[in-house]
Amino acid sequence: MEAWKRRLRMGMVGGGQGAFIGWVHRMAANLDGQIDFTAGCFSRDPENTKVTARQLYVSASRAYATWQEMVDKESRLPADERIDFVSIVTQNVSHFDIAKAFLERGFHVVMDKPMTYNLEQAEELVKIVEKTGLVFCLTHNYTGHPLVRHARGLFRSGEMGRVRRVFVEYLQDFLMAPVEKEGNKQAVWRTDPKQAGLVGTMGDAGTHCENLLSYITGERITEVCADFTTFLPDRVLEEDAGVLFRLSGGGRGTMTISQVATGEENGLTIRIYAEKGAILWAQENPNYLHIYRYNEPRQTISRGHKEYLSDLATGSTRVPTGHPEGYLEAFANIYCGAAAAIRSHLDRKPMKTEEYNFPTVYDGLCGMRFVLKAGESAKLGSAWVKVQGPQGLASADKSHGEPSTEA
Amino acid sequence: MEAWKRRLRMGMVGGGQGAFIGWVHRMAANLDGQIDFTAGCFSRDPENTKVTARQLYVSASRAYATWQEMVDKESRLPADERIDFVSIVTQNVSHFDIAKAFLERGFHVVMDKPMTYNLEQAEELVKIVEKTGLVFCLTHNYTGHPLVRHARGLFRSGEMGRVRRVFVEYLQDFLMAPVEKEGNKQAVWRTDPKQAGLVGTMGDAGTHCENLLSYITGERITEVCADFTTFLPDRVLEEDAGVLFRLSGGGRGTMTISQVATGEENGLTIRIYAEKGAILWAQENPNYLHIYRYNEPRQTISRGHKEYLSDLATGSTRVPTGHPEGYLEAFANIYCGAAAAIRSHLDRKPMKTEEYNFPTVYDGLCGMRFVLKAGESAKLGSAWVKVQGPQGLASADKSHGEPSTEA
Amino acid sequence: MEAWKRRLRMGMVGGGQGAFIGWVHRMAANLDGQIDFTAGCFSRDPENTKVTARQLYVSASRAYATWQEMVDKESRLPADERIDFVSIVTQNVSHFDIAKAFLERGFHVVMDKPMTYNLEQAEELVKIVEKTGLVFCLTHNYTGHPLVRHARGLFRSGEMGRVRRVFVEYLQDFLMAPVEKEGNKQAVWRTDPKQAGLVGTMGDAGTHCENLLSYITGERITEVCADFTTFLPDRVLEEDAGVLFRLSGGGRGTMTISQVATGEENGLTIRIYAEKGAILWAQENPNYLHIYRYNEPRQTISRGHKEYLSDLATGSTRVPTGHPEGYLEAFANIYCGAAAAIRSHLDRKPMKTEEYNFPTVYDGLCGMRFVLKAGESAKLGSAWVKVQGPQGLASADKSHGEPSTEA
Amino acid sequence: MEAWKRRLRMGMVGGGQGAFIGWVHRMAANLDGQIDFTAGCFSRDPENTKVTARQLYVSASRAYATWQEMVDKESRLPADERIDFVSIVTQNVSHFDIAKAFLERGFHVVMDKPMTYNLEQAEELVKIVEKTGLVFCLTHNYTGHPLVRHARGLFRSGEMGRVRRVFVEYLQDFLMAPVEKEGNKQAVWRTDPKQAGLVGTMGDAGTHCENLLSYITGERITEVCADFTTFLPDRVLEEDAGVLFRLSGGGRGTMTISQVATGEENGLTIRIYAEKGAILWAQENPNYLHIYRYNEPRQTISRGHKEYLSDLATGSTRVPTGHPEGYLEAFANIYCGAAAAIRSHLDRKPMKTEEYNFPTVYDGLCGMRFVLKAGESAKLGSAWVKVQGPQGLASADKSHGEPSTEA
Repeated sequence: MEAWKRRLRMGMVGGGQGAFIGWVHRMAANLDGQIDFTAGCFSRDPENTKVTARQLYVSASRAYATWQEMVDKESRLPADERIDFVSIVTQNVSHFDIAKAFLERGFHVVMDKPMTYNLEQAEELVKIVEKTGLVFCLTHNYTGHPLVRHARGLFRSGEMGRVRRVFVEYLQDFLMAPVEKEGNKQAVWRTDPKQAGLVGTMGDAGTHCENLLSYITGERITEVCADFTTFLPDRVLEEDAGVLFRLSGGGRGTMTISQVATGEENGLTIRIYAEKGAILWAQENPNYLHIYRYNEPRQTISRGHKEYLSDLATGSTRVPTGHPEGYLEAFANIYCGAAAAIRSHLDRKPMKTEEYNFPTVYDGLCGMRFVLKAGESAKLGSAWVKVQGPQGLASADKSHGEPSTEA
Repeated sequence: MEAWKRRLRMGMVGGGQGAFIGWVHRMAANLDGQIDFTAGCFSRDPENTKVTARQLYVSASRAYATWQEMVDKESRLPADERIDFVSIVTQNVSHFDIAKAFLERGFHVVMDKPMTYNLEQAEELVKIVEKTGLVFCLTHNYTGHPLVRHARGLFRSGEMGRVRRVFVEYLQDFLMAPVEKEGNKQAVWRTDPKQAGLVGTMGDAGTHCENLLSYITGERITEVCADFTTFLPDRVLEEDAGVLFRLSGGGRGTMTISQVATGEENGLTIRIYAEKGAILWAQENPNYLHIYRYNEPRQTISRGHKEYLSDLATGSTRVPTGHPEGYLEAFANIYCGAAAAIRSHLDRKPMKTEEYNFPTVYDGLCGMRFVLKAGESAKLGSAWVKVQGPQGLASADKSHGEPSTEA
Repeated sequence: MEAWKRRLRMGMVGGGQGAFIGWVHRMAANLDGQIDFTAGCFSRDPENTKVTARQLYVSASRAYATWQEMVDKESRLPADERIDFVSIVTQNVSHFDIAKAFLERGFHVVMDKPMTYNLEQAEELVKIVEKTGLVFCLTHNYTGHPLVRHARGLFRSGEMGRVRRVFVEYLQDFLMAPVEKEGNKQAVWRTDPKQAGLVGTMGDAGTHCENLLSYITGERITEVCADFTTFLPDRVLEEDAGVLFRLSGGGRGTMTISQVATGEENGLTIRIYAEKGAILWAQENPNYLHIYRYNEPRQTISRGHKEYLSDLATGSTRVPTGHPEGYLEAFANIYCGAAAAIRSHLDRKPMKTEEYNFPTVYDGLCGMRFVLKAGESAKLGSAWVKVQGPQGLASADKSHGEPSTEA
Repeated sequence: MEAWKRRLRMGMVGGGQGAFIGWVHRMAANLDGQIDFTAGCFSRDPENTKVTARQLYVSASRAYATWQEMVDKESRLPADERIDFVSIVTQNVSHFDIAKAFLERGFHVVMDKPMTYNLEQAEELVKIVEKTGLVFCLTHNYTGHPLVRHARGLFRSGEMGRVRRVFVEYLQDFLMAPVEKEGNKQAVWRTDPKQAGLVGTMGDAGTHCENLLSYITGERITEVCADFTTFLPDRVLEEDAGVLFRLSGGGRGTMTISQVATGEENGLTIRIYAEKGAILWAQENPNYLHIYRYNEPRQTISRGHKEYLSDLATGSTRVPTGHPEGYLEAFANIYCGAAAAIRSHLDRKPMKTEEYNFPTVYDGLCGMRFVLKAGESAKLGSAWVKVQGPQGLASADKSHGEPSTEA
């Protein structure tokens, strides 16, 4: 490990007491001892922010009542005090405004997904990131898993051949009961179109699915045919979706998403059948990647084996094989990637987007385009609807830090 | 076990040397020592029939050159010599004619699936079965598994609540290579529309999926939206299909079928998420049924446990828990069901269709309607197409030997 | 398949109503349609024998009140009527006398395990089999599994290298409750030293473990150190045993057996770690064999793959990969092996013991020696006790139909 | 979460570049943002210490050339600067001297296992800890897993009933090749009796096994019968051991340990069969605990379910169910426990040993006694040897922070 001169300084918007994802971002940032947690506006409730700051050893002077105050005051601090980047972990609806403000005042940004509330914001955010040239990292954390990164190599290198059929599913039972009526904070905003956006479970889980399959295969979804359902009364946004899709390379796929799948926990699973091989990876057992080949014994690839894993996979691992890693370690890998990019700016040799080892603003745009087109298809009675890739912007296709094979 | 006066006498059309499914039917019939294998026309090649007869200890006088000869001569034998029933294991294209001939000469019929070559034959066959009043058993063998039968009880009793989401998939890599050009007999006829019918993998595997989900849930598929694909050059019929569907009770589902799914063997798997519980069952590991409930530990139900399994499941089991049963035992359960119905005729107290413990001609009709409507949807660019249940005939909905809850 | 002139004729001693293992032997014999079930003495209760005979379509004239009557009358029948072989499925205590009588009257014998009640009988039986030259098959059925047979090849060929550590365990909860006091027939005799012999669970399960590991590795247990336990009051024979052992090739092992292992069903599992690879096989999921190698991805070998399985494994398989086989199919493979050996006598070209594809009288002897020495070790406070292989007799080491590598 | 006034200050002895376990301790300490890494002597090579200090942002003035210098200089620093505790991650041989020095100068200690080089040191260390009254935490990290903690409750509450049979195994292939001759640092000292102690793999892995089973069951091993093996030439210490043992409550067990188990990674698995239930937990898949009961469906307990898990298990969890946690999170739980105990001293209300939620010096003593008695048994040809619990000292049995049920 190279010795940096100092730890990076991180601030946070959102993530006050009672929030889940804020803790995740902080633990991910803590793990490797490369980042100091320094400032924040943790809640729209200033009292919550104060209490949270004390818990996190953030000095009272850096605990801000509003994010507007935060961006303003932090930007006036001396260069050797102010935060290097901000992590935005609020609800979708406020993502854009906060990100815009921090970027325009020169701060790098790490942001939770889905990227924005609507497509206009997503397209605008791409332009802001391009204009400022700053680091923007979207925490599609599942691409941080070493074996997901190994799988990507198997497809990008051609070893698996052309993709024929993809299964991706994301099943939970988070919304089985009307928990939004019982005060569950996450359920309240995720079931409220004003806060969550035009899609429900598709925005939350569908963007992860789209990102994961694009990351591994290097292909984009070009057409979507979706059937949305709501089972519980009084719900407006879909809780459950069956989706057929077609890929840029000619493959076909099925995406199934549900937050009313009885007994499911965080069932994100992907299977990709290609001409020369197939892979299966399940988020709930992330230390194993299963590989199938025609008329050969099945293989189980195990995280941590330097002897046969790609450098990218090996370099994303902290403990030896057989010592399981999980959700936080993968999330921390996204932070490591963002930290490396931010340090490249501090060193005045900024990485190019193509070199980024984390999901970019272009990935965020693709995710938004995909879920909104799926919503459009569902409204049209499951008609096939075309989905634009990031090429719709002046910027070329610059997702995941390397050129797409989409052409 | 009740002691019958004698073993049943079985004949077979098809199943000569080199055929796979004929052996399966014979082993299934042999297992319990209740059936004598007595006569047959095993091939369109009389020499193959002769050799096969010798291998199977069928006397030369009961090895027939054509099935027409067989039905004719057998029907002229004395009642205490002639076969009680015939098993038809030829290709789809000849199913109807053979079944018709045997039924009309008074023989009960066991037949491999899919039932017929086209829908007209299926509808006509229903009428013939109804008119003759004879036993007609379609070997959707997967409903013979004890834990599939247990699962059925969980849904029929209301214990699982209303079905919300179904996943059913049937994945193989049987057609990965152009094996039909290399002389693989099964591949030759299954990829030839003249022999296999209007659909490819859907006819072969899709009918199993439809039957399995209907059997367990007691619901019918009412609408289908399908995307068919052919990846290998020179193939005409689909090798691969992604299907969305809707159920009579309001649930939604995804069916995915492929015979080019690299490294898959006989991957028939069903998951059903309902209001109060979910089940998962995989054909490749049939001795376990997984049950999920909201906020409860997951359960693994194990075949053979009289303490907690339904009588139907326990009665379909031959060896104690922990001693695995498989494909042939389940197949033999279908034969046991057919044998019981045939014996009820010998005893002159014929069972009613509702009492049958095996798939009936109505199931066969439903299967044909489903796959043909899926084909229609695919041709219409994945439009939603309605699927009729067996109620389309004068006969009421009489599938699986008990009234459907569909009403 | 070669066409034999006729089916073999089988008789049975034991296996009346209420017995489990008799049914298993009959189903195993039925499966392939090569054996006619013809005669029997099914119970010490002649009424039970009569009822059982009716159920099995055995003519009343061939249902015998005693096995003595059976051996006598059958031997006086014309050659083209009398049974070719007898299956002995009584309790251990009577195995020897019955086998002796049938062998000495010229009948081949298939017998359930453990072979005899005590060691003297086992040694004597070896001599009788050698003297008569007839087929004697001991149904250590687990060696009938295709993937166990494949595993054997991996070790015999040297591909796995020298064996270092073996784990073998057989766990059930059959005796969790004092079921022998509640009339459970099997429990009654298995817990009664007069019927079961000098050891309890070791005789029942330990012989399977010893046979399985010897079959696969080609090595014998040379020393044993055992700790026996009885947890339930009033039980005399061990219910549970922890065993250390040493192998002829220098490897070490642990054998653990229990019939009070809460929630276990039929948990026979073997793992063998050798210099160049390791295997894991579990009876409850017999269609998969797991292979581990140093610094390589783990492999799952799947039953039915002709592309990579040995001929022995492929030739022991009835249905294609992905169509699970189980306990009965493996048991039937033992019957196929015995049938082939018996037919070789009918054809007057008797196979040599080395050519047998089933467990022999030498395997039975080794099993008896092993479990009795384990019992001796337990009595001596877990002292190491040496275990003789079959070489203790004039006969060379002729187990499993091929020369041992033990030298 | 309660807000502490400040982060704790941590120092480290050992853990320089190239060491594995130092990184693990630091990541575990970082994760929750409650500990500042402040000082260290990372290597016997001062240059390595300097480089490591730079990488870890430890100021040069707190990077010490020797641990003697470190303990001396740190103890002279003002109270609000000096470290609160030291983590000792050197080789076994130096554990005692370093721990003694830090404890006697008033520093709390966290130490890697096994506790000491020999038994005398272990007994002496108990006395030092008792005399100083300071916190001593031994990082048997596997007891940090939430589901291990849940399992403990199942046995301590009596819900599982009396323990009958325990299986515990720890399998790796770390020493398959003569890696100590190829410069693998860990292998060099672990295979060298001068550095590792009187036992080899038993000291490394056996202490984990003993600790884990004692922690869950609340029982101690009272007798041991061991067979040790060395397969590779030139190795002195055992690489592999088969062990029988007896528990204080009358149960029996098998422990199997190997570092030459081909293809095994970090295979620590425990199964405990008791009168009313059984549990199975595998370190490599730590998010699931399997529960078996007599004649009931098997259950899979999943980490993170507040609805049915104990408070201890729930309180040891960072992310929701379905988001896997692993090795580092469990390790961090040990650090959380130690931090709470250290803070109780800062707050001048020191916890009692019985309140500790981490392995104590008494656990370390038990571990040393167990592995040394196993070694004695092996030398005596697998004789049964008695094992003393911590009651051998003046101190009562104070392991795991709560009274043992052993009495």
